[in-house]
Amino acid sequence: MQPWPAAGAAPKGGTVLVTGAGIDMALLEPLARQGLTVRRLASSLTEDQLVRELRGAVAYLHGGEERASARVLREARKTLKVVAFLGVGYENFVDAAAADRLGIAVTSTPGAATDAVATFTVAQIVNANLGIPRHLGARVPGWQGSDELPHELAARSVGIIGMGANGRRIAEILRRGFGVRVSYYSRTRRPDAERDLGISYLPLLDLAAGSDILVVMVPETGETRSMVDSSVIGRMPEGAILVNTARPAIVSPGALYTGLEKGRVSMAVFDGFYGPECKEAIELRRDFPERLLVTGHIASHTVEAMDRMVRQAVKSIENVLTYGWDEHEVGSRSRPRFR
Amino acid sequence: MQPWPAAGAAPKGGTVLVTGAGIDMALLEPLARQGLTVRRLASSLTEDQLVRELRGAVAYLHGGEERASARVLREARKTLKVVAFLGVGYENFVDAAAADRLGIAVTSTPGAATDAVATFTVAQIVNANLGIPRHLGARVPGWQGSDELPHELAARSVGIIGMGANGRRIAEILRRGFGVRVSYYSRTRRPDAERDLGISYLPLLDLAAGSDILVVMVPETGETRSMVDSSVIGRMPEGAILVNTARPAIVSPGALYTGLEKGRVSMAVFDGFYGPECKEAIELRRDFPERLLVTGHIASHTVEAMDRMVRQAVKSIENVLTYGWDEHEVGSRSRPRFR
Repeated sequence: MQPWPAAGAAPKGGTVLVTGAGIDMALLEPLARQGLTVRRLASSLTEDQLVRELRGAVAYLHGGEERASARVLREARKTLKVVAFLGVGYENFVDAAAADRLGIAVTSTPGAATDAVATFTVAQIVNANLGIPRHLGARVPGWQGSDELPHELAARSVGIIGMGANGRRIAEILRRGFGVRVSYYSRTRRPDAERDLGISYLPLLDLAAGSDILVVMVPETGETRSMVDSSVIGRMPEGAILVNTARPAIVSPGALYTGLEKGRVSMAVFDGFYGPECKEAIELRRDFPERLLVTGHIASHTVEAMDRMVRQAVKSIENVLTYGWDEHEVGSRSRPRFR
Repeated sequence: MQPWPAAGAAPKGGTVLVTGAGIDMALLEPLARQGLTVRRLASSLTEDQLVRELRGAVAYLHGGEERASARVLREARKTLKVVAFLGVGYENFVDAAAADRLGIAVTSTPGAATDAVATFTVAQIVNANLGIPRHLGARVPGWQGSDELPHELAARSVGIIGMGANGRRIAEILRRGFGVRVSYYSRTRRPDAERDLGISYLPLLDLAAGSDILVVMVPETGETRSMVDSSVIGRMPEGAILVNTARPAIVSPGALYTGLEKGRVSMAVFDGFYGPECKEAIELRRDFPERLLVTGHIASHTVEAMDRMVRQAVKSIENVLTYGWDEHEVGSRSRPRFR
């Protein structure tokens, strides 16, 4: 009845595969102290390479862009106990359902990058709203006509889809720092956030209709994929700004194309864009290069956020190897858990 | 003893010259209702053109980039009663000392653009700190190595030179929105701001030494020109960011060049850059294109700020023409004033 070692027992050694750039090796030392061998790979991995590299590994700190598919996990099942994902949006990178079935724990690092993501998102909101990027490097002063003048942030209404930790922190900065009017939509209403921050709840379509700037901040799940579709974008006021610093797939690329074409969306911010398999992504880049503000999934990449994420992931690996479970597990492994 | 009309008397008519783009004509209607003829010129003017255009004008709303030199004002003195400057940094555009001597009132629009300037400045602080602009358009995800990872804003110390309305609003957004540690230097200490915002005063050189991000927010005067010189920049910690959204000339271009060259300054933000007469400006652009975040003096260019500035300038024109003075006069015309 106890498939994990007794509480407090040290892990028995083995290999930890660590992927991804930007990880401070010093933060991995606790693993070495536990008798684990850390193998780090900073380059990107194919599925076959990943299968090979995971051979014999007991833990896998996923900080790269590779995909731990069902096949990869199946091949690793004999030794692998835990996949510690660096970040929260693991859905595209780890087949958590397969891991569940195989009894492999998958953990994430909620909250570790909240400040980083929210700060980045607010900066991109201002950048899109004022059109700062297209003015960078200008030699001649100012705007050339009144029709180009942007509205002040404080005169805009911002709608946030999703009121988790990140959505809440974005709302907080916008309210307390800039005095912006903020509404939100969320599956679950958040009376505490409404009261503390002075924000109001709206159904999704009403939020879209009432927001000059619509911010997407939900995790990617089967339920949220393409959640921002043509019915949502079609309700946005003309010339609105769409900010998606969550996962690209939450916004339907076809609906976005139409929204940009019809002028509902004047500018779209993405941190991470649709993959090369997405036909619309190419058309979006081709037809609206000036109206897409795209960065390569960098919002959470700060020294401090990485530090917190790695520490949390290392702790999760230790917990799963030592106690058999961790509080930051995602999925629903059917195991008894002690608290 | 009373060189101006009795209080309440309407101006007797005449022409108002209005320069600059982005001015909503509807906001000038109060002038027309006073019997004044509005002549608007949106293109840039040479000194000779300006002399011609001002012939017969009683008022001059300066919203362009032309220079109202001593000669221009002297030629206009017979009719010109007031130059209403759109904004606060009039020093490079209106010879206020000459106007003083000629008895021509010069007004500015303090406070009207505070929110716009502060919001723009904070966005550029985040842009410079995270290096967002160089990641725009990226197709590959993330940073490629840990040495490139930026620090979170909340982990940086920000120093603000100048604690007027704009400096204070920048401090407020950074403190209340982002929870950043803020210090300041100002000719006059501001105990109210220290108390209300939780910021601390430091002498200029100490501020420079203790700030990861140094923000310049003082008006340009004889006293502040080149205030940020090699002694200030030489004290900045290695890799610091210099943000000058006030007037370019407050930072010595030669000192900035050395600071960038030696690595004290990793990135410099300017809103408005040194003019073509400045030899160092060309060298700065040539040698550090990636480390200058330059926009063309656009911080105050929002619909709402322009609206407030134009309304204030129109009111100042009415006041000077009707009552002989206005509360927003700059300089020190030697006239009795009633309050």
